[in-house]
Amino acid sequence: MICYKVTLEYDGTRYGGWQVQPNAVTIQAMLEAALERLTGTPQRVQGAGRTDAGVHARGQVARILLPDSIPAERVVMAVNSRLPKDIAVREAIPVDPSFDPRRDAKRKRYRYTIHAEPIRPVLGRQYCWHIPRPLDTEAVASACGYFEGTHDFTSFTRTDPHAPPGMHERTVDRCALTVEGSRLCVDVEGRSFLYNMVRNMVGTLVDVGTGRFAPGEIVPILEARDRRSAGQGAPACGLCLEWIRYGGAP
Amino acid sequence: MICYKVTLEYDGTRYGGWQVQPNAVTIQAMLEAALERLTGTPQRVQGAGRTDAGVHARGQVARILLPDSIPAERVVMAVNSRLPKDIAVREAIPVDPSFDPRRDAKRKRYRYTIHAEPIRPVLGRQYCWHIPRPLDTEAVASACGYFEGTHDFTSFTRTDPHAPPGMHERTVDRCALTVEGSRLCVDVEGRSFLYNMVRNMVGTLVDVGTGRFAPGEIVPILEARDRRSAGQGAPACGLCLEWIRYGGAP
Repeated sequence: MICYKVTLEYDGTRYGGWQVQPNAVTIQAMLEAALERLTGTPQRVQGAGRTDAGVHARGQVARILLPDSIPAERVVMAVNSRLPKDIAVREAIPVDPSFDPRRDAKRKRYRYTIHAEPIRPVLGRQYCWHIPRPLDTEAVASACGYFEGTHDFTSFTRTDPHAPPGMHERTVDRCALTVEGSRLCVDVEGRSFLYNMVRNMVGTLVDVGTGRFAPGEIVPILEARDRRSAGQGAPACGLCLEWIRYGGAP
Repeated sequence: MICYKVTLEYDGTRYGGWQVQPNAVTIQAMLEAALERLTGTPQRVQGAGRTDAGVHARGQVARILLPDSIPAERVVMAVNSRLPKDIAVREAIPVDPSFDPRRDAKRKRYRYTIHAEPIRPVLGRQYCWHIPRPLDTEAVASACGYFEGTHDFTSFTRTDPHAPPGMHERTVDRCALTVEGSRLCVDVEGRSFLYNMVRNMVGTLVDVGTGRFAPGEIVPILEARDRRSAGQGAPACGLCLEWIRYGGAP
């Protein structure tokens, strides 16, 4: 058997997220089914990040095993021809069997896309969050800066009163806004994220853009370590896992 | 009653085209149903161009009538709240009741989007034609030029052996290629087009890009006045009616 690092693009709209679970169609399950059709043997694949229901990816990474009889240069096409139209393998690279897509990941980028204009978007509506009014983009850009660095992100994840101290500490390497007309993109980069962390950060940034919070209020919100101190959550459809970077090979 | 020129964006994926017809859900029918829910009275709306099943629009234009009791600045929201998510009014401008969106149109732009790369696209796949190999973009750009000007486009429309001479003559004001990585956009502008004309032009351009035709062969293909002399047709999903320009007001 040969171990491959595969990079996946998917449209999360109709899926219950990445991870296999009962009572939901998931991306991982579709990939495992495609591999079983290809090889005749079931296998459990390992993914780098557990994207939630409705979240998209341009660069999810997984580890799969394939028999030596399939030439490496045929892997992408062989798997893609067995996947539905809303999932595709973009790249397959042979790697050492010790490769662990989750543990070995050095950095991930999520991109959140917002359309801030009175009229709801139609073409591409599946890939953004519509905010029906203009946002103060300078305030949003300024607020982004407060997320960078190492913080306790308890205020931006599901409340767990029994979590030990430090468990919700994460490092955001980059949080930056790009504006193109009424389209806003928030890029968030880091090694790992808490459950719903990026969506709760973006929802709070939108609350900064509408004037509910001043940019500098991100600091006391982080310090509060209380989900109720932060703003709204952002819907899944605007979020996309753009890429995952690994140190050295692969 | 006040007459409005409305500009519409729609995702044509699940529709049988613009025009009302039996046994198909159409954009025109959805718009008419929304207006009937708003006003309580049925009306027939007039559209500028009859986009085919599966074709999208960012700038379709229609003429609608609304009672004076609806303030002009409320029209867009009032209609949009009664339309499905894949159709939206972008603009509504009061116009003279003599406004005829089809006859008064001076110029239309259609954009056709192609993704030329081995791996099929996933995000945005609804809005492009996937060609699983690179295309000779210089040859395609060169071929585009041969379409500009006034020609008999019989070779690029549905064959009608009884059509009188000159009936298939059209003027293409602009036909130009834009390339951005593996994404190719063909913009075609003119006052009016024959049935399937843009899609048959684009299919033939792709045949130029794969080497089936030389760019200069567009000339004898036009002169042949025979659909069989041209190349394949392009699928509907890649086509979008971008805008319609009117002289003077509106």
